[in-house]
Amino acid sequence: MRFHTEYLTFRTPTHRQYVNITPDVEKALHKSGVQEGMILVSAMHITAGVWVNDAEDGLLADIDQWLENLAPFRKDYQHHRTGETNGDSHLKALLVHHQVIVPVTAGKLDFGPWQQVYYAEFDGQRSKRVIIKVMGE
Amino acid sequence: MRFHTEYLTFRTPTHRQYVNITPDVEKALHKSGVQEGMILVSAMHITAGVWVNDAEDGLLADIDQWLENLAPFRKDYQHHRTGETNGDSHLKALLVHHQVIVPVTAGKLDFGPWQQVYYAEFDGQRSKRVIIKVMGE
Amino acid sequence: MRFHTEYLTFRTPTHRQYVNITPDVEKALHKSGVQEGMILVSAMHITAGVWVNDAEDGLLADIDQWLENLAPFRKDYQHHRTGETNGDSHLKALLVHHQVIVPVTAGKLDFGPWQQVYYAEFDGQRSKRVIIKVMGE
Repeated sequence: MRFHTEYLTFRTPTHRQYVNITPDVEKALHKSGVQEGMILVSAMHITAGVWVNDAEDGLLADIDQWLENLAPFRKDYQHHRTGETNGDSHLKALLVHHQVIVPVTAGKLDFGPWQQVYYAEFDGQRSKRVIIKVMGE
Repeated sequence: MRFHTEYLTFRTPTHRQYVNITPDVEKALHKSGVQEGMILVSAMHITAGVWVNDAEDGLLADIDQWLENLAPFRKDYQHHRTGETNGDSHLKALLVHHQVIVPVTAGKLDFGPWQQVYYAEFDGQRSKRVIIKVMGE
Repeated sequence: MRFHTEYLTFRTPTHRQYVNITPDVEKALHKSGVQEGMILVSAMHITAGVWVNDAEDGLLADIDQWLENLAPFRKDYQHHRTGETNGDSHLKALLVHHQVIVPVTAGKLDFGPWQQVYYAEFDGQRSKRVIIKVMGE
C-alpha cells in the first residue's frame, strides 16, 4: 500500500476566504502514483473547513452570507473569555465539517461533473495548514 | 488490498427525496469480498448529501422541514445569476455533508442498532450518481 | 495492511455532554502498531456526533447553546409519534456529523496544534458506543 502526505500552507489576505484546492489535490495524487484508493483532505486548524462543491463565485458569496447568518460573529461568546474573538469561526467550521475523502479510480479523482475541493478559511490573515494524504495502490 | 467500486444512479420523482441505500451498500460489500476495511459512500453531485441516521418516516419529514428552515429556497441567491434556481440545494447539501465512511468488520457493516445509510436528494428529477468504494482485505 | 478495531462505551450522566476522547484514539493507535494510515472514529448511534475541535470549556458551552438554537428541543417533531422525545438529538447529530478520519503519519495523530477529538452526546443517560478503527501499515 502506498501513502503520500503533503501539507498546504495558507495565509489568506482576508478574514474569511474560500480557495479552490482541487489542483493541489490532483498534484498530490500524481506524485503518489496511486491508481486505486482515496485522498483525505483535512484542515489542521479548528477555524477552517474543507468541502466539495461548485466553483461558482455567486454560490461562494451565498455560502459566506448563509454561514454568517447561521453562525454569526458575536462579541459575547463564552470562548472569548480566553482572549480570542473567533468563536464564530469555530462554529462555521463545525457546520461545514473540516475534511473530505476524495475517491481515486484509475489514477484520477473520481468526481462528478461539478465537484471541486475547497479550503474554507474562517479566521485568516495568519498561517494555517491542510493535510493531503493519499492512500491506496 | 482489495478495491471494489460501484455507482448508483438516481432520478427521483420529487425535487427533494430521501432514499435508504443500505441494501446497496451491503450488496457492494458482499461483491467485494472484503472482511476488514471501510466503504466510502459519496454523492457525486453538489446538490445531494449522504448521511447515516434512522429509517423512520416521521424523522425524515422533520429533517426535510428543518433543512428548509435553515437553508430555505429563495429567489435572490447570487448563484441564480447563472440561470440556476437551486441555491438552497447546495446549502442543504453542505449542511448534511455529502459522504460517509462505513466501517467493515468481519465481513459486515459495523453499525449500531439503528444506523442506516441515506441518499439525500435536494435537486431531483434529473440523473444523479453516488459512488460506493469498498477498500480493505 | 493492519486493522485494529476498538469500541468505546459511554453512559453520560447528563442528557447532552461533550467528551474529549483524544487519549482513547491515541491508545488505539499505539496498540495497532500502525505508522502510516488513518483512524476512523464514528458514533454507532443516531443521536451522537464526533468532531475535531478545541478543548476549551467556553467554546463547548457556546457550541451547546448554538446547537440548541439551530436544532431546538420541540415537542411537536413528527418523529415523536413513535413515542420518542429526541427529535432534536437526531438533528444536532446530523448538523455536526457523526464521524471523523484522523490521519496517522510516523506513528502519530497528524493533527494541528489545537485539534482534539470529541464525542458529542445528544441523548445520554443510556449506553452508547463509538467505533475506533485504525487502518494502515
